[in-house]
Amino acid sequence: MRILVIGAGGAVGRAIVAELAQRHDVVEAGRTRGAHRLDVRDLDDVRRLFAEAGTLDAVVMATGSVHFGPLGEMTAEQFRSGLDDKLMGQVNVVLAGQHRLADGGSFTLTSGILAEQPIREGADASTVNAALEGFVRAAAIELPRGLRINAVSPTVLAESMATYGPYFRGFEPAPAARVALAYSRSVEGAQTGQVYKVW
Amino acid sequence: MRILVIGAGGAVGRAIVAELAQRHDVVEAGRTRGAHRLDVRDLDDVRRLFAEAGTLDAVVMATGSVHFGPLGEMTAEQFRSGLDDKLMGQVNVVLAGQHRLADGGSFTLTSGILAEQPIREGADASTVNAALEGFVRAAAIELPRGLRINAVSPTVLAESMATYGPYFRGFEPAPAARVALAYSRSVEGAQTGQVYKVW
Repeated sequence: MRILVIGAGGAVGRAIVAELAQRHDVVEAGRTRGAHRLDVRDLDDVRRLFAEAGTLDAVVMATGSVHFGPLGEMTAEQFRSGLDDKLMGQVNVVLAGQHRLADGGSFTLTSGILAEQPIREGADASTVNAALEGFVRAAAIELPRGLRINAVSPTVLAESMATYGPYFRGFEPAPAARVALAYSRSVEGAQTGQVYKVW
Repeated sequence: MRILVIGAGGAVGRAIVAELAQRHDVVEAGRTRGAHRLDVRDLDDVRRLFAEAGTLDAVVMATGSVHFGPLGEMTAEQFRSGLDDKLMGQVNVVLAGQHRLADGGSFTLTSGILAEQPIREGADASTVNAALEGFVRAAAIELPRGLRINAVSPTVLAESMATYGPYFRGFEPAPAARVALAYSRSVEGAQTGQVYKVW
């Protein structure tokens, strides 16, 4: 398969590339690294990426930031930043890519454990991650030409515990290489509308 | 209790008012009807509402629109309209209201069955409704002063079947008066972080 990985430069993205490149032709894209540079918040950037990338059998997204901060101090602008970035960024890729992927191709998005298991200061993340899972369930029944769509919901990364550990006390972290397996399962399996939890 | 109902002019809003007004002091607000007029998408409007409405023990939201249309033709702007209206509208009310509600007060939001059970042309609705449920789970663990927050997830309304029936073939509709009970359960009960499904 020819697989586009968006967010290939991040901790999860690098692990996904390492996993998939053993068996497939991987095209790397990202905000600051990879053969293709784009801001997924910009639909024109996303369309240009698909025009440049050629025939694709799968798109994997390991991208998107959200706002972390106390609910009591959160502004609407901070809250909206996660909607614009992690949510609309991935939605933009599906809206544009549904017309470009090869028949039977797949989208794999990234949500996260906070969709179901909230933490302090994580209201934006919980909202965005739950939204992505709702989108995946709905898009799965409408995509044409045998296209599939799933999400991977990782717990906190072992590699990120130095930064995020204080937010995730008692959560069992997962190494990026283990999280990457779930993306492989989505891309190389046959299911659609699924959320693969790595937790 | 003194209870603010936002969206009091809609089919569900009117039923909520009828249910709660039997036992409580209900303040009605809405885009085009009620003692207080506001656009919940506008945080300044929401803040003004709380400044004018006086002491409140509960806020019920039965408001918000989303875009219905085929995923294959959906634009980012259409998708975003549901985020701006049904999602950010209700989030705005919580962000502003958390500093205004009386101790032990409650927020009750409205999600919907499409969060879990998708239909054709409903990707925006599924996304927004799932997002609201994620937000409720997260906000519940951060709200101060014993404040509570829940969502009601209605199925399609019996009163709306003339319009929405073709989208919801085989779904069992619920009368607005039955849906209104779930809002009463949220406001007059003691739980937080719940999604009350009326389906």
